[in-house]
Amino acid sequence: MKTVEDIHLLVNSSLEQLNWEKEPQGLYAPIAYTLSLGGKRVRPALTLMACNLYTDELDKAIRPALAIEVFHNFTLLHDDIMDKATLRRGKPTVHLKWNDNTAILSGDVMQIAAYILISEAPAPVLKPVLNLFSRTAVEICEGQQYDMEFELRDDVSTDEYLEMIRLKTAVLLGCALKTGALTGGADQEDADNLYAFGEQIGIAFQLMDDILDVYGDEKTFGKKIGGDILSNKKTYLLLQAIRLAEGATARQLADLLNGSVSGSQDKIRQVTAIYDKLGVRKIAEDAMDVYYKRALSHLDLVKVENSRKEVLNQLARNLMNRKD
Amino acid sequence: MKTVEDIHLLVNSSLEQLNWEKEPQGLYAPIAYTLSLGGKRVRPALTLMACNLYTDELDKAIRPALAIEVFHNFTLLHDDIMDKATLRRGKPTVHLKWNDNTAILSGDVMQIAAYILISEAPAPVLKPVLNLFSRTAVEICEGQQYDMEFELRDDVSTDEYLEMIRLKTAVLLGCALKTGALTGGADQEDADNLYAFGEQIGIAFQLMDDILDVYGDEKTFGKKIGGDILSNKKTYLLLQAIRLAEGATARQLADLLNGSVSGSQDKIRQVTAIYDKLGVRKIAEDAMDVYYKRALSHLDLVKVENSRKEVLNQLARNLMNRKD
Repeated sequence: MKTVEDIHLLVNSSLEQLNWEKEPQGLYAPIAYTLSLGGKRVRPALTLMACNLYTDELDKAIRPALAIEVFHNFTLLHDDIMDKATLRRGKPTVHLKWNDNTAILSGDVMQIAAYILISEAPAPVLKPVLNLFSRTAVEICEGQQYDMEFELRDDVSTDEYLEMIRLKTAVLLGCALKTGALTGGADQEDADNLYAFGEQIGIAFQLMDDILDVYGDEKTFGKKIGGDILSNKKTYLLLQAIRLAEGATARQLADLLNGSVSGSQDKIRQVTAIYDKLGVRKIAEDAMDVYYKRALSHLDLVKVENSRKEVLNQLARNLMNRKD
Repeated sequence: MKTVEDIHLLVNSSLEQLNWEKEPQGLYAPIAYTLSLGGKRVRPALTLMACNLYTDELDKAIRPALAIEVFHNFTLLHDDIMDKATLRRGKPTVHLKWNDNTAILSGDVMQIAAYILISEAPAPVLKPVLNLFSRTAVEICEGQQYDMEFELRDDVSTDEYLEMIRLKTAVLLGCALKTGALTGGADQEDADNLYAFGEQIGIAFQLMDDILDVYGDEKTFGKKIGGDILSNKKTYLLLQAIRLAEGATARQLADLLNGSVSGSQDKIRQVTAIYDKLGVRKIAEDAMDVYYKRALSHLDLVKVENSRKEVLNQLARNLMNRKD
């Protein structure tokens, strides 16, 4: 049984062994760059941890775990073009450091590289693992499409938002866990419960991210507080506020979204005041709690002794900054 | 045994059965549009024909055949963004009719859709078919990268050019044939010969395309004559001319490439005159002939009675506008 630290060491050393020193370097150097930017490597860790519930031989889960990390980084690469993002983990994005064409084509190769890695899943589970991977990949693209469409719409419901973040973010965590479970020899019921654990924790995590953007501590959050407010991002908090605001408050919120306040700190302060008045923080925290507890209840149902599940419990707590 | 016409009917009806009427339509409508633009559907036809060499049950080869057509159209979609192309088969390109982001994301989904289809190859050949597909997909991206890099380089050799068109165009024809062969039950030797047949005919076809751009008949060629010359495209003919030109001819060619002539018909006439003087047409036709004959010799080696191979012979002749 591996510890969280063992797993992360294994993920990082395996990732470093992938060879991108190939020709043409104009195609492969941006891939090496993207994967060198770091990140928490949560997804491949989840795959190995799920596999480790059933077997101590993690070798056969390593390539599928890397597939999921490479795919995740591919989506970030193409999303950064679409969002015209300039920074990724504090470094210039690929489309800025090189150009759009390079970012498109290197991303395409990363997607194929992910498929090459997932195709190395053990023969007996290749078909279900492959099908799960493809279904998840499509869902992530659908999530990105909804995300882009929502920015142009004025009538996005909180349910639509929850479905969008489920597709864009949560299903890949579920896929990572289920891939590891299937590779490790889990039965269908356990594999599905581990998928649900990942999916629900993914939604909880995204809600937490929305909350921390407004109420977090800049030092631990790692991003500027209020960024979502300044960009009018349709977060769970904003959508709840739009739903609940009436009369003068609704008009004030609409004015703020239309740019009535010029100072950015003023805008953050006034929107936050509306959130406070409407109790939006509590609503978001309650929703986050529901998803978090639902996640844990699925992990609870997995038919493996509790001591083996402790690493996943620990990772979930770390992810959510929780002690309980 | 199916005729060429039977095969094309089967390809078209199967392609029409793919369902793109899904949500979000912002993601799927561009895919339906791309696939509705038509084209000769040579690649899926090759897959079914190769399968048909070994069995009359073509059902199991249909989804892999569609995978290759969907993948091919995905590459066109992303290439059109990179090349800033405005027309594809006479209709507006996706990035123009919608926008770049839509073209990127819909293309990404097409690539996944291609993998979903190729994953439906029969279980006994799934692994080799999948590996061949991934290797080919990577090679096509490498070919596109070389193509873009060559446009910025002044020292591209004809060998480098031949390798670029092999990667960008020819390997997918080889892959289409080998996929059909493996699905139909061919042995390794036959499968490899059919791959080589496709690869060599692919290179011959691209050389013919280069020749017809200068010496073709506008009515049958389907594109304006001299387009490659006007855009300084580094075709096989231009690279041979650069290699062979000396003294005043070399200086005249360099001046023409640097835009010394303002009238486009003048430029086409003068570059063609240089090609004629240097005998570049003959060199290109001889090279095309070598690849064409090499292709046929590989088909000849396939251990199937000649009558069954006639459809592939016929398709090769049609593709190359040949009677012999």
